[in-house]
Amino acid sequence: MSGSGGHPARPLPVSEVPAWDRVHDVVIVGHGAAGGAAAIEAAQAGADVVVLERMSRGGGATALSTGLVYFGGGTEIQKACGFEDSVEAMQDYVEKAAGAQADPERVRLYCENSVEHFEWFRALGVRFSPRFHDHKVTHPLTDDSLVYTGNELAWPHAEPRPAPRGHKPAQEGEAGGALMEAILAGTDQAGAAVVNDCMVERLVVDEAGRVVGVFARVFGESLTVQARRGVLLAAGGFIANKEMLAQHAPDLLVCNYQVGTAADDGRGIRMGVGVGAEAVNMSEGLFINSYYPPESHLKGILVDGNGQRFVNEDAYVGRTSDAMIRKADGIAFLIVDDEIYGPTQALHKLAAVEETIEALERALEMPEGSLVHTVARYNELAERGEDPWFHKTARWLRPLSAAPFAAVDCRVGRSIYGGMTLGGLAATATGEALNPDGEPIVGLYAAGRTAAGLCREGRTYASGLSIGDATYFGRLAGRRIAAAEPWSDPRRPPVK
Amino acid sequence: MSGSGGHPARPLPVSEVPAWDRVHDVVIVGHGAAGGAAAIEAAQAGADVVVLERMSRGGGATALSTGLVYFGGGTEIQKACGFEDSVEAMQDYVEKAAGAQADPERVRLYCENSVEHFEWFRALGVRFSPRFHDHKVTHPLTDDSLVYTGNELAWPHAEPRPAPRGHKPAQEGEAGGALMEAILAGTDQAGAAVVNDCMVERLVVDEAGRVVGVFARVFGESLTVQARRGVLLAAGGFIANKEMLAQHAPDLLVCNYQVGTAADDGRGIRMGVGVGAEAVNMSEGLFINSYYPPESHLKGILVDGNGQRFVNEDAYVGRTSDAMIRKADGIAFLIVDDEIYGPTQALHKLAAVEETIEALERALEMPEGSLVHTVARYNELAERGEDPWFHKTARWLRPLSAAPFAAVDCRVGRSIYGGMTLGGLAATATGEALNPDGEPIVGLYAAGRTAAGLCREGRTYASGLSIGDATYFGRLAGRRIAAAEPWSDPRRPPVK
Repeated sequence: MSGSGGHPARPLPVSEVPAWDRVHDVVIVGHGAAGGAAAIEAAQAGADVVVLERMSRGGGATALSTGLVYFGGGTEIQKACGFEDSVEAMQDYVEKAAGAQADPERVRLYCENSVEHFEWFRALGVRFSPRFHDHKVTHPLTDDSLVYTGNELAWPHAEPRPAPRGHKPAQEGEAGGALMEAILAGTDQAGAAVVNDCMVERLVVDEAGRVVGVFARVFGESLTVQARRGVLLAAGGFIANKEMLAQHAPDLLVCNYQVGTAADDGRGIRMGVGVGAEAVNMSEGLFINSYYPPESHLKGILVDGNGQRFVNEDAYVGRTSDAMIRKADGIAFLIVDDEIYGPTQALHKLAAVEETIEALERALEMPEGSLVHTVARYNELAERGEDPWFHKTARWLRPLSAAPFAAVDCRVGRSIYGGMTLGGLAATATGEALNPDGEPIVGLYAAGRTAAGLCREGRTYASGLSIGDATYFGRLAGRRIAAAEPWSDPRRPPVK
Repeated sequence: MSGSGGHPARPLPVSEVPAWDRVHDVVIVGHGAAGGAAAIEAAQAGADVVVLERMSRGGGATALSTGLVYFGGGTEIQKACGFEDSVEAMQDYVEKAAGAQADPERVRLYCENSVEHFEWFRALGVRFSPRFHDHKVTHPLTDDSLVYTGNELAWPHAEPRPAPRGHKPAQEGEAGGALMEAILAGTDQAGAAVVNDCMVERLVVDEAGRVVGVFARVFGESLTVQARRGVLLAAGGFIANKEMLAQHAPDLLVCNYQVGTAADDGRGIRMGVGVGAEAVNMSEGLFINSYYPPESHLKGILVDGNGQRFVNEDAYVGRTSDAMIRKADGIAFLIVDDEIYGPTQALHKLAAVEETIEALERALEMPEGSLVHTVARYNELAERGEDPWFHKTARWLRPLSAAPFAAVDCRVGRSIYGGMTLGGLAATATGEALNPDGEPIVGLYAAGRTAAGLCREGRTYASGLSIGDATYFGRLAGRRIAAAEPWSDPRRPPVK
């Protein structure tokens, strides 16, 4: 198995740990958004906490992200921008965004506590601007903070119109780094210890199967760490592990851009499975093939290799990209005309440019008359502001008529498909890792991408749900572990 | 978790087993095709074998099946029917039928030993007739034995033309029962012990994590069985467990007919996961919505809710049904005319019958002009014997022109979707159950539907691969366990 240095899935019996190098209440594996949030809460609750981070510095996938967080229910920023929102309205939408197999308890807690969680970020020093970004983008490149980040305005969600809930730290460009700096500083400030360059290789279990610590390496030297109250696996997902993708989420193998870091190699999940925890939702993921900005591209139409449409083009990129894979078998083109075309942020190439749709159809080797019919019918209905086929909203309906016409190449292998996993260890909302009977593995917790979390489907996803999930449920897990019954080593071996 | 009586995922430490009720070399959980085949081989290899069956009699899903087995490479029946086949030709096709993520070792072994495996069945007393059934059916209702059971004749496989490899015991109707009777009789004859009405509730493990036996119940009485050489989990899949489907294979929740028995509740998989084995390929399954026979229906066209085609209608039912779910979102109709329509074996209803395609389109509430265009274009090309869109073979291409026209209702909720799981424990071809590092869990083996086996995708599946997989790799596992290093209980407790 790639990236499997050591034997993460083979737990170490405590009888093989002659002495502990360190003893803490709470041992957190991974210093990303989930691990950091958990560390802050656990330390603030009075626990003795250590965070073990395999990289030279914490950050995880969040540090590489745009920094969007999905908050709602009436945040100060929503109010300042003139949007009304409520817990009920948020929950109504998040239920759908979380996917059909989501955990209702997670959805409820997340929505009921969203304003509090927003204020928790502000207390860490994260700033948001009271400015709404009124464009269809994957994230604002300006320092505007509030933006629609999901399918809120697209069929079938547009009525009643949900409020925008994507909140980006007030900073130009990508803001995930700034957000993680605040969390890393918060970890220090709360008094949690941090050991960087520390690769956790195996969990340590006692004879009853309780997780009582970890075996790690720091620059080759072994480090045994006892966890009196529990171990939290917050070590990311598995998008960087091709063998795991093949076994669990083969659709994601088409992705040529990992939404994550090299550390997203599934070690956290494998360690949990090795001690009997269940991994669930493992086949699901988020695909990202973003043909906008420019937002004018939403006026184009997505077609498959037979020139047939297959999705409403104004849906969130998670839904349209999923459809490109599952419905169009990875053979997708965005058909545009001269008026709406612009280079995309993701540097899509043009598969063909022609003066007529007939010529474009031939150039794309589609069946004769296929694309011609699709465009003719689309144009006729777009003229009337209607899309009875796929329900694109009227704002983006406009005939394609300004020659030349082009096919923006969204094919697998010819364009960038970002990918992220959405499966992980089965866990309660407060982080207890569960076996296939739904019973906790005593001493083991999971949060962030290592757990099957808030959102279970890429086709329903909204940007901001991952950082929101990781931080909020990381906090709950931190609090829960800090309050867990302590274990003490009956052998009373020396602490080195 | 439904169907979870006891705690299958929580292993029992051997220290909690004061004495063994029985001691055997090989303990087999489940007396279906895999367990029976394993018992025969292990007993013939000289091992002391017991099979524990939760039902009152063995049989499993195979006993309820049509009894097709996928054999090739030049069986006597293939030869008698005038078909040439070779190991290479078989392997070339089975590689595709097994799916992109299949285990090449399993594919190779299965094909190289297929003639020998066919003869093994005959030696058990199973008879096959030297008659080829030259119709597109899911299985012959006659006592013909040889039939095409997959995508062999459909695009993209038709050239070079593969040989038929579905072998059904020579008997009218469904033949799975006869096949299992032969295996059950073989188990007895080989000298394996069988305990029926025996529910295996938990695996027993020693301190090093080795599986050393099982804890079972027979009519409420506990039964502890030591396994000197190993435990084989051959306890079926999880199509009967809705909670497991929701967590691992939610697409299969649409199925209203289980291809399996009530015992396919995933207990075998959960017991394996509970001791640290990995479950893989868990999201994959086979969907069956069979709109033929009558085979004249292959001359119809499958359309989605927008009147668009989405698959070649002459593909194997596993592929067309998968497309109904994933491409058409469960909204599928087979459009037929008066000449080709006939009642289906699966009792499909008609969603609408109308004198014109225009009226049919309206009755099905499709966008104006959608179905009309699809049929017009299909007819025009069918007249020329061409289907550049989905590559239906010429044999089934014929314009739909004999009014009245009808829509055979293949929608989810309005027709029967059979379903079967294709995920299970990661295991070697010889049955060793593996943890997420790819290392064996000592003493634990898996075969049949409890393991991720030969075929990994419903859309590539061919009928006969499941019984072929279960019996062939069951045999390999039986032989392997019989030769495993024996364990002996260091405590030497009494055998009751």
